[in-house]
Amino acid sequence: MSEIDKMDLNATINPRRQSWVASANDPSCDFPIQNLPFGIFSDNSNPLARVGVALGDAIVDLTVLADHGLLPQAREVFACSTLNDFILLGQLQWRDLRIRLSTLFDRDNSTLRDDPKLRDISLIAQSDARLYLPVDIPGYTDFYSSKEHATNVGLMFRDPKNALLPNWLEIPIGYNGRASSVVVSGTPINRPQGQIKRPDSDRPVYASSQKLDIELEVGFIVGSNTTLGEPIQCEHAENHIFGMVLLNDWSARDIQQWEYVPLGPFNSKGFATTISPWIVTLDALEPFRCNQPAQLPEPLSYLHHIGQHGFDIRLEVDLRGAEDSEADTITRTNFRHMYWTMAQQLTHHTSSGCNVRVGDLMGSGTISGPTPDSYGSLLELTWNGQRPLTLVSGEQRTFLEDGDEVGLRGWCQGHGYRVGFGSCLGKIVPAVGRG
Amino acid sequence: MSEIDKMDLNATINPRRQSWVASANDPSCDFPIQNLPFGIFSDNSNPLARVGVALGDAIVDLTVLADHGLLPQAREVFACSTLNDFILLGQLQWRDLRIRLSTLFDRDNSTLRDDPKLRDISLIAQSDARLYLPVDIPGYTDFYSSKEHATNVGLMFRDPKNALLPNWLEIPIGYNGRASSVVVSGTPINRPQGQIKRPDSDRPVYASSQKLDIELEVGFIVGSNTTLGEPIQCEHAENHIFGMVLLNDWSARDIQQWEYVPLGPFNSKGFATTISPWIVTLDALEPFRCNQPAQLPEPLSYLHHIGQHGFDIRLEVDLRGAEDSEADTITRTNFRHMYWTMAQQLTHHTSSGCNVRVGDLMGSGTISGPTPDSYGSLLELTWNGQRPLTLVSGEQRTFLEDGDEVGLRGWCQGHGYRVGFGSCLGKIVPAVGRG
Repeated sequence: MSEIDKMDLNATINPRRQSWVASANDPSCDFPIQNLPFGIFSDNSNPLARVGVALGDAIVDLTVLADHGLLPQAREVFACSTLNDFILLGQLQWRDLRIRLSTLFDRDNSTLRDDPKLRDISLIAQSDARLYLPVDIPGYTDFYSSKEHATNVGLMFRDPKNALLPNWLEIPIGYNGRASSVVVSGTPINRPQGQIKRPDSDRPVYASSQKLDIELEVGFIVGSNTTLGEPIQCEHAENHIFGMVLLNDWSARDIQQWEYVPLGPFNSKGFATTISPWIVTLDALEPFRCNQPAQLPEPLSYLHHIGQHGFDIRLEVDLRGAEDSEADTITRTNFRHMYWTMAQQLTHHTSSGCNVRVGDLMGSGTISGPTPDSYGSLLELTWNGQRPLTLVSGEQRTFLEDGDEVGLRGWCQGHGYRVGFGSCLGKIVPAVGRG
Repeated sequence: MSEIDKMDLNATINPRRQSWVASANDPSCDFPIQNLPFGIFSDNSNPLARVGVALGDAIVDLTVLADHGLLPQAREVFACSTLNDFILLGQLQWRDLRIRLSTLFDRDNSTLRDDPKLRDISLIAQSDARLYLPVDIPGYTDFYSSKEHATNVGLMFRDPKNALLPNWLEIPIGYNGRASSVVVSGTPINRPQGQIKRPDSDRPVYASSQKLDIELEVGFIVGSNTTLGEPIQCEHAENHIFGMVLLNDWSARDIQQWEYVPLGPFNSKGFATTISPWIVTLDALEPFRCNQPAQLPEPLSYLHHIGQHGFDIRLEVDLRGAEDSEADTITRTNFRHMYWTMAQQLTHHTSSGCNVRVGDLMGSGTISGPTPDSYGSLLELTWNGQRPLTLVSGEQRTFLEDGDEVGLRGWCQGHGYRVGFGSCLGKIVPAVGRG
């Protein structure tokens, strides 16, 4: 970037910038002018899925702005049912568009503000829109990068004296997930069925999971295609990241426990993963960088990076039973607790020579904080069902019941505004044929 | 299928059928008129990648046949750089096309045989063609379904008294692989780098793998999109399979050993997987069905199927060092040894509710036979390097060296003909920056 571009980019994150879209200036709104996250939407007046940007309680229809010559890019990349074509244009184009939108919607910019007809067709109410999976996901990888989570799992299921496995402090451990079953917020989640082996039985049964769990995660979306055989260097890794989403890695603990040795989780995870519909760009998250935790032993040199690579993202999970009028917030934590950074995860992923592709989704792994009220899964919150949660309604929960609705929320708190992720919702419905 | 269709389909596998393409009648040719496998190719005269069918030493250009009204389908599905659009048409269309091609190229059919001009432009010499990955692969799953292989690995690395883990006889164990790095036969394979932990060292190093291995596998290509939440029934599972390929699941054993607990193999496998360019349809393999091995204990009912679901496919691996004039055949085995069937693998995969998509690749897992000369990996053939192989050249091998070329071959042996897979080749080159 030139120095001028940097200045423009800095203006987009200026906390004092306000928009003429009034709802965007509400301090509790996830989508102020500093955010400008990308998604795919349609509405009643135009059922074609296309690229939009969330601003206040509206969606900016980028196809309309492009039609009127207001954007640096041609309409084609926005008249798409996924963001992949736009992302493929590269980091400079993402930034260029961000700068343009930030300028157009600035309180003092009259171009659109004072053109009621164009304004009306370019701003769609979020309440009138349907949201879709924002990207076609060629590959989904899930990491395991919370030290607290890995330790808790080790305490429960392995040697409590050596809860953390020896490779954990050296490798940002990850595994390949199932991309076909990644769904957008709001998609109902069928309770999975699978092989469950009860301790008092010689053989497993094929049955509906009785230990259906959440995993509170965030994910990042890869922003470039790399070449097979050519690792990404850690100091450049963030340039290959387009942005972030909330991610709920639904997990069937009973299926998992029986299947996962020696090749890892498979059917216990592959039935569904929910992500939030808006991709918050790394540029929008820039003001919320923070130090990652100290890493000891010092990682091998291919995982070195200098500077701040953590992000201060507050995270909460709400749970609402089928009969409950209100939701309980069952955990509160922060992405800043994560031991391994996104840059290190992506670097490690390609360090073998493995290539990545635009739209690849990389999950953080369950984000657990240091205290029991900050754990990112029911497995940990109820200590594998031994300590049930009591909800406001008086009901108890160990794992999820049919009808339960789970919502993830995440936001970065600025002075007088927040850069938020919207919500990531899923409601449990019975397994097909078992309702 | 109607009875008439069945008769037509039976004619396509008639061992006595001959083609007017003379090279297809050679008993040692992989691509007789009974085979008709699908692939993607281009040639000097037309650099656009498109759908072709291998026949003898030629490729039938389906775009040309469609242009001349000789096929049941429109040209559009053949003028594609992947087979996905054609596969999406469904099983009846695959069969319809197979019947048409079998008829057109029958020795006694004059339509094309006696039209030299059309014949010339519709048959391209394989030696003049470039072959591509035949499908866009939305998801790659690798199973672990050879009892002999799983037992050998257990003997080497786990408890020799309980070499097979308790879940192995109940679950067709599998894991999600990395689809981005699946490459077509002939693509050079960069030696992977990664974390390697030597027993005499406290900490790992990041280095080139010194235990680079092959895994002799076959893979099947999924032929339909299923709905999230709706499992495939085992008795119908084969209807969702388009065809099969050879598959080499390159593996870095030193990286694998350090990384794989608890979430399974990741960088040790994700750097490359090679498949053969021609997809042999299940219809072509029909005459080579055989009994799968006896399964004890009897699988849970969701994994039940009646009839024969094994396939008698002979498999060999050739290894040629950089300086060697000829290759050694280092193993000979057969797909019929596999304990779990493809139908059971696919059923299990979707039994959680996980959906599958057209083009999904599902690897069998390493195919090892009962004798030491029939093992499907160098890990087993050399017993983790303890018993080096001596090649014809006098050189020894424990694992692969730079310059080594590995070729997989597979075929079904009929009376006077074979239905073959062509070859699946890969040559090891140094890691990028380490050459």
